Amino acid sequence: MDFHPYRWGDPAHATELPTSAKDTLALFGVKTPEHGPVEPVEITLPAVALDAEALDALAAVVGAEHVHTDHDARLGHTRGWSTPDLLRLRAGDATDAPDAVAKPGTHDEVVALLDACSTRNIAVVPYSGGTSVVGGLAPRREGFAGVVAIDLGQLDALLDLDPVSRTATLQAGMRGPRVEALLGEKGFTLGHFPQSYEGASIGGYAAARSAGQSSAGYGRFDDMVVGLVLATPRGTVTLGSAPKSAAGPDLRQLVLGSEGTLGVITSVTVRVRPAPAERVFESWRFASFEAGADALRRLVQDGPEPTVLRLSDETETGINLADPSAMFGSGPGGCLAVVGYEGSAADVAARRAGATAVLTEAGGELLGPDGGEAWRKGRYRAPYLRDPLLDAGVLIETLETVTFWSNLHALRAAVTTALTESLTAQGTAPLVLCHISHLYETGASLYFTVACAQAEDPLAQWAQAKSAANAAIRAAGAAITHHHGVGTDHRDTYAQEIGPLAVDALRAVKQALDPAGILNPGVLIDPTTGGD
Amino acid sequence: MDFHPYRWGDPAHATELPTSAKDTLALFGVKTPEHGPVEPVEITLPAVALDAEALDALAAVVGAEHVHTDHDARLGHTRGWSTPDLLRLRAGDATDAPDAVAKPGTHDEVVALLDACSTRNIAVVPYSGGTSVVGGLAPRREGFAGVVAIDLGQLDALLDLDPVSRTATLQAGMRGPRVEALLGEKGFTLGHFPQSYEGASIGGYAAARSAGQSSAGYGRFDDMVVGLVLATPRGTVTLGSAPKSAAGPDLRQLVLGSEGTLGVITSVTVRVRPAPAERVFESWRFASFEAGADALRRLVQDGPEPTVLRLSDETETGINLADPSAMFGSGPGGCLAVVGYEGSAADVAARRAGATAVLTEAGGELLGPDGGEAWRKGRYRAPYLRDPLLDAGVLIETLETVTFWSNLHALRAAVTTALTESLTAQGTAPLVLCHISHLYETGASLYFTVACAQAEDPLAQWAQAKSAANAAIRAAGAAITHHHGVGTDHRDTYAQEIGPLAVDALRAVKQALDPAGILNPGVLIDPTTGGD
Repeated sequence: MDFHPYRWGDPAHATELPTSAKDTLALFGVKTPEHGPVEPVEITLPAVALDAEALDALAAVVGAEHVHTDHDARLGHTRGWSTPDLLRLRAGDATDAPDAVAKPGTHDEVVALLDACSTRNIAVVPYSGGTSVVGGLAPRREGFAGVVAIDLGQLDALLDLDPVSRTATLQAGMRGPRVEALLGEKGFTLGHFPQSYEGASIGGYAAARSAGQSSAGYGRFDDMVVGLVLATPRGTVTLGSAPKSAAGPDLRQLVLGSEGTLGVITSVTVRVRPAPAERVFESWRFASFEAGADALRRLVQDGPEPTVLRLSDETETGINLADPSAMFGSGPGGCLAVVGYEGSAADVAARRAGATAVLTEAGGELLGPDGGEAWRKGRYRAPYLRDPLLDAGVLIETLETVTFWSNLHALRAAVTTALTESLTAQGTAPLVLCHISHLYETGASLYFTVACAQAEDPLAQWAQAKSAANAAIRAAGAAITHHHGVGTDHRDTYAQEIGPLAVDALRAVKQALDPAGILNPGVLIDPTTGGD
Repeated sequence: MDFHPYRWGDPAHATELPTSAKDTLALFGVKTPEHGPVEPVEITLPAVALDAEALDALAAVVGAEHVHTDHDARLGHTRGWSTPDLLRLRAGDATDAPDAVAKPGTHDEVVALLDACSTRNIAVVPYSGGTSVVGGLAPRREGFAGVVAIDLGQLDALLDLDPVSRTATLQAGMRGPRVEALLGEKGFTLGHFPQSYEGASIGGYAAARSAGQSSAGYGRFDDMVVGLVLATPRGTVTLGSAPKSAAGPDLRQLVLGSEGTLGVITSVTVRVRPAPAERVFESWRFASFEAGADALRRLVQDGPEPTVLRLSDETETGINLADPSAMFGSGPGGCLAVVGYEGSAADVAARRAGATAVLTEAGGELLGPDGGEAWRKGRYRAPYLRDPLLDAGVLIETLETVTFWSNLHALRAAVTTALTESLTAQGTAPLVLCHISHLYETGASLYFTVACAQAEDPLAQWAQAKSAANAAIRAAGAAITHHHGVGTDHRDTYAQEIGPLAVDALRAVKQALDPAGILNPGVLIDPTTGGD
């Protein structure tokens, strides 16, 4: 699949705004911009900074046919899918374009590419799905001879499937649908379904600690990984002798979340599950977000645990109801939840009976399968609305965080207030929606969607709101990201979160594995500050 | 509780060998040694290497009354509870005794102690439970002005309990029974019951990635930890803003398993559970170890999962049956399993019904509650037999490993063969018992107990057998330890397991947090080899 440089997902699924939505937007002072976005072909790229010797060195590793410096290849590897990323490209700004795109076909070629780039002081951005929404694909350029995107798309094989141990070894460039197709042929599933499923890949899941919509049942991606292979400028690191052990620190968990700064993950070995024989998705209504959160908490703390758990707040519930293409057609008021079960028929029946009793006891009203099934079938569609909304003059973006249960409602209030106050002060009062979609025994994530009229400079407008949200998250003691990652956008808040000594420890690991500092410089860790 | 310097556990639980056992031992060529062990008061300690200035500096931090250099304090902090550790002390060898024992009362005092020792090039061994069985308490002495044991016993408070998030913050020096007593008063349990429960402490659980006998239901200790505080010579690292996040690598998992080499863990925040209302423990018989392993694998892969799962091989099953104080009195043949359930009455009933159906379908024979209950009540008693066995001239020790399911039986055969061949070649044919006690979806641990007649030099005898076992584990691609840790005993095999680049990465983290290299030197990582 070829993705558009600045539009979400599969171009075949691009969508239009419903007419009724346009009427609603007018109420928020939204005005359609005079000029549409710059067409991709009209975007000017910076000149290729790499000289012929450098390009030849890349070609010597992967073959000349796998080194690309043309306009489309470079533009197609420029930044990710965050709203600021899209806004920049829509405005014709492709200053972060890589100088070249190299497409290795093997792990050894990745190691050789890193060695070639390290020797020549060329910065490297590992690129697999290209779906980062936190600036993870925009490495620092200053101080380097150029930037090469290492596109892992050719590394897309299922290397091994062990049906007894229920593990699969997957190459980093495999996108979600390919993983499920290949595992499905053998009767297995990975069960990892992030919102970016159509575009995101195994390497990105691992490097940025992805969490999918079925995390209640299948776990987060970092829970699934039992082994990995990392290419570094100094060679290969292979980790994962056992599911769990006491053999020192769990270094897999040091590589997971390292966002391409310590090496390039070329394959992972993951736990897989039998493809489910049965699926039931239902929707529920709760009187309030607090009541719904308490009910869902009971399930993850005392069981039985469904496969999917998701609770929208009153505003998100209301928006969906007001939309003629609404996912839930169940009447006004309260908060809607999706509860899904996957597994064997007996397992689904048992968990569903148990969970239904708990949710009913907690004040929930079972609305039936229609809303749940509609959500399941349309689960990847919502982000496609962003492009026509941006076209229509709406600023829309999402952000997320995670905390312990006792801090959840205070955190939600603080972030909502920060976003609302920042954008209102800028003359663009927003709508702030929130949902819970990842739950743990000790806490849960909060996912916010923010929409308002675009100001004259929407990048600056969002930067101010985002900064206020980051500060609110930090002040509340929560984590700066639950599953989007750190990238460049969260880097400074992340440094505050873990503190200067932990930043030094990370920097020391990077120095050990990547002495020239070429790997995704500026992502995750600021290379220009700190240290002894 | 005061522990004996070289006898396991609570002195009140010391035990004698049954007469019938002594008869059996004679069959193995075991002869009672002419001389009993050296009495503790007769063991000569090396002179205290620290000068008055250094001792004053420690006293300035914790108070003179909390700095101990007397014979009993130093001897009581010498090494841990492995058979080689005991053999050395029984032979009067206390060369690894620390020069002083400092007992801080606060986290800040730990930081100040590390600073004082760092400045003076004094090696530090963090000491909480003192139960290491892998040489984790015997730091390298060469190149240092001396060795100080930092005894965390005063850090034994329950700092916080959050009943909504179900988290508790526990200081590192708390031993297992105290944790359960304090949590129990509030209606909660940690659910962590390692064999060393009576002696081991929170700090050790964390630093060495402990796994308890109820790991199937409650998880490993590293699964329970959501936050921790680490004292380093450069200051404090505080980790854990949320249950899980995508905010970079999970640095908690870098500190867990670091065995005192990166800092001193002074407190952890853990997930807790409501104290169970109901407990059912039962025993089952399977025709073979393979059949039993397959049956238990079905439970951890497809559910429902009991709280305790444990399967003895034919030899371990037979030994227990031959013993008049046998845990299982259920007739000869096959392999015995313990299956336990803890939780609410409804939860226990549901899981027990489901698991009983699965195990029966898999060929298991339910023997009833007697064997299971006897195991539960006697679960901490078995290691007390080691001391009278050593007195009687038996060499007895345990070791453990973990691998993926498809490799489990090959690993068991390889380790059994390596141990048997090594000891038989030394003229002391052993008995090798094995059980599975920790199970995952993708694999399981193997725990071996080895017993034979003591040779003239039992330390050298065991070193040779252990070396053969380590090589077999490495050749099988398994992890060198499931829950005992690395210490000094597994250090070199561990380095082979993770490879030289990963060792460099660990060394880099240590250098960043502990620039003088005073923290448990020689444990986990060899400070004298490798690096750039």
